[in-house]
Amino acid sequence: MAKINSIKRRIYFDWAASAPYSQSSPPALFGNPSSQHSEGRLARQALENARKKCADFLNVPACALYFTSGGTESNSIALFSTLTRAAKGRIISSGAEHASIRECMETLKKMNKPCGQIAVDSAGSVTPETFSKALSQYQDTRFAAVMAVNNETGSITDIQSLTSISSESKAPVHFHCDLVQAVGKIPVNIQNLNIDSASISAHKIGGPRGIGLLYLRKPLEVFYSGGGQEKNIRGGTENVNGAVAFADCLAENIVDDLYTKAKARWNKLITALLSIDRCTLIPKERVVDDERFSPYILQAAFKNIPGEVMARALDDLGFAVSTGSACSSSKPERPVLTAMGIDEKLRIEGIRISQGCSTTDEEIDLLIDGIKETLKFL
Amino acid sequence: MAKINSIKRRIYFDWAASAPYSQSSPPALFGNPSSQHSEGRLARQALENARKKCADFLNVPACALYFTSGGTESNSIALFSTLTRAAKGRIISSGAEHASIRECMETLKKMNKPCGQIAVDSAGSVTPETFSKALSQYQDTRFAAVMAVNNETGSITDIQSLTSISSESKAPVHFHCDLVQAVGKIPVNIQNLNIDSASISAHKIGGPRGIGLLYLRKPLEVFYSGGGQEKNIRGGTENVNGAVAFADCLAENIVDDLYTKAKARWNKLITALLSIDRCTLIPKERVVDDERFSPYILQAAFKNIPGEVMARALDDLGFAVSTGSACSSSKPERPVLTAMGIDEKLRIEGIRISQGCSTTDEEIDLLIDGIKETLKFL
Repeated sequence: MAKINSIKRRIYFDWAASAPYSQSSPPALFGNPSSQHSEGRLARQALENARKKCADFLNVPACALYFTSGGTESNSIALFSTLTRAAKGRIISSGAEHASIRECMETLKKMNKPCGQIAVDSAGSVTPETFSKALSQYQDTRFAAVMAVNNETGSITDIQSLTSISSESKAPVHFHCDLVQAVGKIPVNIQNLNIDSASISAHKIGGPRGIGLLYLRKPLEVFYSGGGQEKNIRGGTENVNGAVAFADCLAENIVDDLYTKAKARWNKLITALLSIDRCTLIPKERVVDDERFSPYILQAAFKNIPGEVMARALDDLGFAVSTGSACSSSKPERPVLTAMGIDEKLRIEGIRISQGCSTTDEEIDLLIDGIKETLKFL
Repeated sequence: MAKINSIKRRIYFDWAASAPYSQSSPPALFGNPSSQHSEGRLARQALENARKKCADFLNVPACALYFTSGGTESNSIALFSTLTRAAKGRIISSGAEHASIRECMETLKKMNKPCGQIAVDSAGSVTPETFSKALSQYQDTRFAAVMAVNNETGSITDIQSLTSISSESKAPVHFHCDLVQAVGKIPVNIQNLNIDSASISAHKIGGPRGIGLLYLRKPLEVFYSGGGQEKNIRGGTENVNGAVAFADCLAENIVDDLYTKAKARWNKLITALLSIDRCTLIPKERVVDDERFSPYILQAAFKNIPGEVMARALDDLGFAVSTGSACSSSKPERPVLTAMGIDEKLRIEGIRISQGCSTTDEEIDLLIDGIKETLKFL
């Protein structure tokens, strides 16, 4: 017994569950949270602490949060739960949703689920009117997916006004909200939104890739539970280090302050762009200090310059901007702008400029100069 | 122009695609590989280099590898492709598969897909005989899933002998192989296995969580392609840092050498356990230097000691061992041992001991002493 009692270190024989990291990483966290031994319990504790930290930031109960691999997976878990749902009915979503929702809808149609589309206004938002119209048109609706902040234009949908409509439906409608471009950027109160589920991604706000959250007001029966992790909502060994880094990143985030500063910077940029003859904001109605839009995203078109050419010219000068969503960048179509009724010429010319927490006033000034310089040559 | 030309740094305005890391991480890799700008192209290059490195290690073409969030997702992408497959037919899997496959089969059954089970022998392996029998019983089989190394007993299935049978079927059978406990541990030649798809996980061999690979001999039409990343096979922003760390971890791995050393350590452990009266190896046929089993995994039962009690006692002494798969640890059932025909008493008493690349001879000696000490008191 003497020999055994002299062990001052841990000896690990559960490599089949999860291996110690060969790279540099906190060794306390390599355990599999589903394992019962000390390494597993430490990992479980770290995971649950991370969940609690996220819950505190989001002001929701920790038990309503499930870690996933990111926004795309969170969206798909929510939407594909309709495949196992006892209550049959239609799934509707807006025409301006992210590709991860759009592709879910395509899959659901292939599975012969009744689907429908909610019209968006010229900004890419769902209005109480278009939502009511969709619910009247599709009275068998049992699931609706509408994003809070459009990822191409930054337009904000007043989700609370929509859920106050759907909550009055005769049969219950599950309301899912893609919060990927909202959380950590604009003030969001999930409880007040009165939604049933939401998706959140870490890497859009400075956290690592491969980790996201699904908020579920009540547990769901999911399409596929894998190994049963995350209370049967999301299978696969939990990405503990990712969850911890995500939680730390959220906890550091002081949204109101960042939002105010982002607005000031965006006002400067928008004022400058509106003074450029060849520039058209998308949608055209967007103005300075416009509360209908997120001050983190802007879509603009430059007359007779395809967006791809403009983005490349700015890239050569040192600026990273994009043409639309990165997830759709390999495809020439701009389905979100099409759903907004933007004409083809503007769609082709559109570029997306988006900022973040560490963007500076000086960077905005330089971007304005960079755009003006580019326009001299294109 | 002077002002602009003087920018010596990059200025990032694509935060909506992906944010720079707020934590410590190589800044070159925060770009979204789907973005066209310099940051995006750098991320794409890193991702494709990582893919090439994995492909070189696995001796397969880089274009046949798709990064996923891990083994569970790789398994589900392969199995759920049967939901969109034009060629209808039955899906069969062995009764000893990992929970991620088992749960896929449950979902497929709920979707009214014809399914079937392949019997395993007392070690947990599929034999040419049981596989032939399953194919005769289910002549409409078009998809078969069999794991290479059982995660509870370490039993190795001779996959090549199975694919030589299924490749002679009248209608083509897609053969999927879970390689999670095989790659990086035992010598594997994917080309020789003659399989259509395979799943691989990083965290089982020292890589990070949240990253895995799906090998596809030919591209598949998947159930859900999300944002269209990974050539429409796996949606969601690519986990570039995860992929790079995974590739580095694989590249460092010299399987033949590690395997030889692991075998020597396991022979020592098995010899010692066989000399303990109260110990029964599961299956009972397992002997020293047994090529039918992986030298990384061992299942053993101790007379009149429930596995949970034994694992807890060893944990108190400083040893991490498990009772079965971590993914199933919250459930008392042992479906894999049941499929092997192990009687209930032994199932309850079973513990899993698994080692890895950095396990030492001294750790084996200490474990043997620890088990002997524990048996004095239990």
